[in-house]
Amino acid sequence: MFDLNDIIKSMKIIAIDPGYERMGVAIIEKTKEKEILVYSECFKTSVKIPHEERLKLIGQEIESLIKKYKPDAMAIETLFFKNNQKTGMKVSEARGVMLYVASCADLEVKEFSPMSIKIAVTGYGMSDKTQVVSMVKRLIKIDQEIKYDDEFDAIAVGLTYFATRGSC
Amino acid sequence: MFDLNDIIKSMKIIAIDPGYERMGVAIIEKTKEKEILVYSECFKTSVKIPHEERLKLIGQEIESLIKKYKPDAMAIETLFFKNNQKTGMKVSEARGVMLYVASCADLEVKEFSPMSIKIAVTGYGMSDKTQVVSMVKRLIKIDQEIKYDDEFDAIAVGLTYFATRGSC
Repeated sequence: MFDLNDIIKSMKIIAIDPGYERMGVAIIEKTKEKEILVYSECFKTSVKIPHEERLKLIGQEIESLIKKYKPDAMAIETLFFKNNQKTGMKVSEARGVMLYVASCADLEVKEFSPMSIKIAVTGYGMSDKTQVVSMVKRLIKIDQEIKYDDEFDAIAVGLTYFATRGSC
Repeated sequence: MFDLNDIIKSMKIIAIDPGYERMGVAIIEKTKEKEILVYSECFKTSVKIPHEERLKLIGQEIESLIKKYKPDAMAIETLFFKNNQKTGMKVSEARGVMLYVASCADLEVKEFSPMSIKIAVTGYGMSDKTQVVSMVKRLIKIDQEIKYDDEFDAIAVGLTYFATRGSC
């Protein structure tokens, strides 16, 4: 049987946990053997500037990361909102900018639901934040100190991309 | 008393009725005397292409209209959704792209709720589509034939911008 991993030697993705106040971003490279965390950050925008200005900063940040790291694809979490519709709309607007920048850079885009990410990373769709963080730390080597969960979540999105790639 | 209209001789805006299947766009110029409809269209994207590709086409269309007509500001309708959350999220994503492109082009952005547009154009916040279309036709000279309400709605957004500008 032929194995996709034997053909594609190395692949790089940009993984995103979307948000307009805080956005988690991770650049992950998959070699034949393992996933390597190339870069990650929690990108923040100030509540003091107009919403469209925050969207501009978000889009420009992703654009510059794509230019720097040249990923082949974008993995991004879908939105599941139940309570605050206004916040949900604003996050959707930010997600729109992320998808737009990816599409303009000709990246393949894969979207993952919060539940599918939890299943891929922890094996259980109802796992909590702590369990996700703990599993992410076991699955990939992280050298820097991470302060915000958004950054861990972005790494989890990226790991989900590679975990589900073979089966797609 | 000094009148703002005496100082600003002419101003041009791009007005948008947001959507990802159909987006209404109008370029309206306000001279000292009246509003002139410079251009309008209903921009459609195909359901057959991926969502992020549709967002790309939407963003590129607005970018090219801004480049061609050089508006000073963008007027855009806010989203009010009650039923289909999935559609609401997709329209929000498209709106995000529109705000992003405007912000990158350094346009001032003004958002108007569906109700404020109805009040500005028809004088009544609960007016229906037909009343809005009928009033738009009376308020501004339209030379071309308009097939879709989205295009009339975009013109209504633009008229709202100018109607409320003095009072802002």
